[in-house]
Amino acid sequence: MTLNLVPFVSVDKMMQLVLHLGIERVLCDLAAELEADFRRWPDFDKTPRVASHSEVGVIELMPTSDGETYGFKYVNGHPANMKKGLQTVTAFGLLADVATGYPLLLSEMTILTALRTGATSALVARHLAPKGARVMAIIGNGAQSEFQALAFKAICGITEVRLYDIDPAATRKCAANLAGRGLTVVPCTTPEAAILGAQIITTITADKHCATILTDNMVGAGVHINAVGGDCPGKTELARDILLRAEIFVEYPPQTRIEGEIQQLPPDHPVTELWQVMTGRMAGRTNPRQITLFDSVGFAIEDFSALRYVLRQIRGTAFYDDLDMIADPDDPRDLFGMIQRAAK
Amino acid sequence: MTLNLVPFVSVDKMMQLVLHLGIERVLCDLAAELEADFRRWPDFDKTPRVASHSEVGVIELMPTSDGETYGFKYVNGHPANMKKGLQTVTAFGLLADVATGYPLLLSEMTILTALRTGATSALVARHLAPKGARVMAIIGNGAQSEFQALAFKAICGITEVRLYDIDPAATRKCAANLAGRGLTVVPCTTPEAAILGAQIITTITADKHCATILTDNMVGAGVHINAVGGDCPGKTELARDILLRAEIFVEYPPQTRIEGEIQQLPPDHPVTELWQVMTGRMAGRTNPRQITLFDSVGFAIEDFSALRYVLRQIRGTAFYDDLDMIADPDDPRDLFGMIQRAAK
Repeated sequence: MTLNLVPFVSVDKMMQLVLHLGIERVLCDLAAELEADFRRWPDFDKTPRVASHSEVGVIELMPTSDGETYGFKYVNGHPANMKKGLQTVTAFGLLADVATGYPLLLSEMTILTALRTGATSALVARHLAPKGARVMAIIGNGAQSEFQALAFKAICGITEVRLYDIDPAATRKCAANLAGRGLTVVPCTTPEAAILGAQIITTITADKHCATILTDNMVGAGVHINAVGGDCPGKTELARDILLRAEIFVEYPPQTRIEGEIQQLPPDHPVTELWQVMTGRMAGRTNPRQITLFDSVGFAIEDFSALRYVLRQIRGTAFYDDLDMIADPDDPRDLFGMIQRAAK
Repeated sequence: MTLNLVPFVSVDKMMQLVLHLGIERVLCDLAAELEADFRRWPDFDKTPRVASHSEVGVIELMPTSDGETYGFKYVNGHPANMKKGLQTVTAFGLLADVATGYPLLLSEMTILTALRTGATSALVARHLAPKGARVMAIIGNGAQSEFQALAFKAICGITEVRLYDIDPAATRKCAANLAGRGLTVVPCTTPEAAILGAQIITTITADKHCATILTDNMVGAGVHINAVGGDCPGKTELARDILLRAEIFVEYPPQTRIEGEIQQLPPDHPVTELWQVMTGRMAGRTNPRQITLFDSVGFAIEDFSALRYVLRQIRGTAFYDDLDMIADPDDPRDLFGMIQRAAK
């Protein structure tokens, strides 16, 4: 073992890994990893992400640890990036050995975040959506939309997705990407048309301001709402009245109360933690007419699960490169001598 | 410009860059960068580092931003690593563009941290040490000791360093590395011998517990103490009585009160912020008999300054590699399509 080298999964290697395994398999595998970690939620160090806000966006660090392995993700959110030809969200992440502090893995996480977000949404819906749900509306057909669609197909058995975006070009892009993948894809020209007959409504838009993607009268009894796009202070997607009618499920309340849809509600409004549903301590959906809402903001443990999965998958493969990132002098106290000896 | 590529300075490239520029020049350049940023200290977002503690060490994230550029460092501290042949402290860091959230630079920071820590110590001593100081004691002759010695030579005009370590092999290593560099190097077998005639005392040991490297009667009037090793909760190097006799100067009080020597003192014990000394708002040393103490813990802005320096130095050179770290689809909303098209 060469101590200075850290396995690095580049964007290209991540794409090759995902294509090699198959995207639906990756989504299912990730859901299993995520569920395993939700079930041992109390084992993790948890802290709201460390955010650096500016007028145009946010840069965040999301650390966690289970006492053996430490992980963090760097992620930005810049809604105006898209118009400049840039990604709204880019990310990379790291795992490290708690015993030594040495990195174990550096990985791109723009793609991996899209995968883990889709897998998390579908995993949660498997616990909360009405039985036999087969139709999902996706409001917002940007970079994450296909990952949501395929995750719900692979993990929840969704057979039809109904697409709406304020920009018809985004809907066309999403529909084209989903063609031939075993889903009935219905492009719609209004949000009302998109939610027709849908048992699950996914909202995943990117504006950094309080928007009302769904109004109260659009949401009928028995629906599961997967609210993914509202994920930082001042950025919400749902009318407040919907929240008051719904049973609300969250990842980590201290973070969701700052960043999620429930920032519209008093700080003591009751919410249920998902790990308690997955361990059977708390009820999920209790009747078919209930409105369940996953107020998704994304939590560090989900990135940790995804990185651990990648680390396990790449061992013994060519889906990574070695990065000379950690100084490793022969005598650990002789950092200076190492530099001197590097002179050729 | 290819948006997916992030300049990466590996350990090897950092060594080549430092050797190319010359280590004393790098230390002087860094001191100038650091001073420029200390002088505009209020411009920066400041937060105590985000620490994940375990029984054997700590992993920390140190973010900051000046509104234009964002930076953070990943750094661990694991005192027992040395016995396993590992570095006690390893680090890497990143700069990003606040306007887009896109990374600008990824760099090793094990070497860079040693350089910036030495440069910071010497810069501070230039403001606080007694006039005409020429002799420095270095208690603790581990990985950082040579960087301290050369920084004080290049930046403060120190001509003699007196070395002591509990392990004589460390002292021999440090003395050998400093040979032929224009310093009088005096290896000593006791800390008392090391501080004989020294106007500056640098303590830089790595135990993760409250130690007393310097006792009260060892510190005479007029000395400047550069206390570098006490830098996390429960880790200190100086007898409390020394603190009570000294004027104490710190980087960022909310962090130093948790991590520095002053964790031994009440939370309202007066300290002076270094940026106020460097801008002339507060006095530094006011008389030759005063004991001045730099309670160094290392702050995120110092890493920011160092990374910005590296970014400027590597432009147009071969001292970096391009890292395929940021997904960059032709249409930013078409992350999924990018993966599909990567299938060959």
